[in-house]
Amino acid sequence: MTYVLGIDVGGTNLVAGCVSEDGSRLEGLLTEPTRAEEGADGVVARMLALARRSMDALAAAVPGAKVAGVGVGSPGPLDTRQGIVLLTPNLGWVDFPLRGRVSDGLGLPASLDNDANCAVLGEHWRGAARGTRQAIGITIGTGIGGGIILDGQLYHGASDCAGEIGHTTIEMNGRRCACGNYGCLEAYASGPAIARRAVEAVERGAESSLRALMDTDPASITAQVVYEAATAGDALAREVVQDTARILGAAIANLVNVFNPEVVVVCGGVTLAGESLFAPLRREVTRRAFRPAVEVCRIVPGALTGSAGVYGAARSFLDSRDG
Amino acid sequence: MTYVLGIDVGGTNLVAGCVSEDGSRLEGLLTEPTRAEEGADGVVARMLALARRSMDALAAAVPGAKVAGVGVGSPGPLDTRQGIVLLTPNLGWVDFPLRGRVSDGLGLPASLDNDANCAVLGEHWRGAARGTRQAIGITIGTGIGGGIILDGQLYHGASDCAGEIGHTTIEMNGRRCACGNYGCLEAYASGPAIARRAVEAVERGAESSLRALMDTDPASITAQVVYEAATAGDALAREVVQDTARILGAAIANLVNVFNPEVVVVCGGVTLAGESLFAPLRREVTRRAFRPAVEVCRIVPGALTGSAGVYGAARSFLDSRDG
Repeated sequence: MTYVLGIDVGGTNLVAGCVSEDGSRLEGLLTEPTRAEEGADGVVARMLALARRSMDALAAAVPGAKVAGVGVGSPGPLDTRQGIVLLTPNLGWVDFPLRGRVSDGLGLPASLDNDANCAVLGEHWRGAARGTRQAIGITIGTGIGGGIILDGQLYHGASDCAGEIGHTTIEMNGRRCACGNYGCLEAYASGPAIARRAVEAVERGAESSLRALMDTDPASITAQVVYEAATAGDALAREVVQDTARILGAAIANLVNVFNPEVVVVCGGVTLAGESLFAPLRREVTRRAFRPAVEVCRIVPGALTGSAGVYGAARSFLDSRDG
Repeated sequence: MTYVLGIDVGGTNLVAGCVSEDGSRLEGLLTEPTRAEEGADGVVARMLALARRSMDALAAAVPGAKVAGVGVGSPGPLDTRQGIVLLTPNLGWVDFPLRGRVSDGLGLPASLDNDANCAVLGEHWRGAARGTRQAIGITIGTGIGGGIILDGQLYHGASDCAGEIGHTTIEMNGRRCACGNYGCLEAYASGPAIARRAVEAVERGAESSLRALMDTDPASITAQVVYEAATAGDALAREVVQDTARILGAAIANLVNVFNPEVVVVCGGVTLAGESLFAPLRREVTRRAFRPAVEVCRIVPGALTGSAGVYGAARSFLDSRDG
């Protein structure tokens, strides 16, 4: 069978894997720290080595398997037609010809698309959004990204930058966001923003199991630590998770009111919070969005934890070849 | 030449006109008060009489002209497939088979679509959004509606209710909206909400030329009165218009970030405020949305004042016949 190599470039980790053209098999799923501080050349070298190891694993598992090409998912903004990363604050790249570097390095045709687009494309192909015509993906990590499937295809917009859900305003005069504006969803509900809201609440004097951690190492309080404390019954952590649910719920209600999609897939570390997040989140959406839109829309965690980006990057290569 | 009758059903006025199939001619554009208090049967009777007068005017202007069908634009939510108005708070209709009533009454095939959808469709066919692939329309009147053109076609969503831009949240814990929620765009920037913010500012004691009107008849302060006072230099009215621009700007920035459209067309009475509204509105969008999305997006007033809905209703009939 023919395979496509998918590479998901994250600020923290690189992930690669070989996906069969029909999407039924994933071989050689491997991950490596990105080490952006090594510079673009260093990251590309590690990416190519990881890709070769993934293809070796494929060859061992499926003798005679062919790799038709490489799909790369990268933070943006991008120029997907030229295969160029215009700017990635997390990686420090500017106008970097990533597609060409990967294609030349591996001797294979390559495609480039936004990482959040690849995540929702992967979930649409093989995960939680299978079989839907309209799907919205929200990827919550260091930042908040989004991807939109309409009529079963990725929607890119007029200049390749549709889906910037993380920087939609939910509070006109709210928290300052890293993008320079005020009240963006990302300023409240990204992983670091969730941790920051917990730290601030402890600083304001609220009783919490997180206080001991604060006293020894404030940086150790991550979003995941907050979810764990909430699950263990810590009242402050539970309030932070509830607030996160309300905030995400308002942003998702906006998308439900405007796009009227069949499914909203929430991907990333935040899904570790499970039903303690999703139950109040769905309540907030139901409260804010129009009933005929809410009634047809599932709001679910991603089903392809750790591999949605790889599946989607592979799929975007296949789509770029067909288009 | 063959014509299509377009009917735009508003809470205040009914508008009808005959549009040639190629969109080049509009004949018999007529308007009548809706008088919703007369009940659905009364409104339909007036609508049919208006439609017949419009077709008479067409026959007088273009001897031998044929009318192929009727497109109706109505407030919703609707079931466009069944031709039913599910609910219109302004008109008080519930599960009303409007398409059938119009079709039977005129003896012509008919279609039904949302009024805001028709407005953007009209602007896309013959007005400010001509030639674009992605266009967003925002209709500001008693309420705030929205319509979305993607790939040159109206986008309806999974259950026919895409585009509810008026009820997107821009302030999580903001003003109470008529829909029951808090912080919807409509609670700040509809015609009545603009007037209400002006009245509140006067009540708080601000100096204004509006105070004399307030003292005689507070209900006489409409959004249009506020625009006129702003144009005449009234400081309070100018601040209300500026705030409206900031609020609309934040909501439009969200649409620009998510849809990355070529054009956003703002329709309705609010456009009377002219550049005193649009200049700060564009500044706010530029401040809040991503540069590569802002750079490709025009933000403009509608070009078909008073007839966008008629053009769009006619066009939606043509599209329903083709689809």
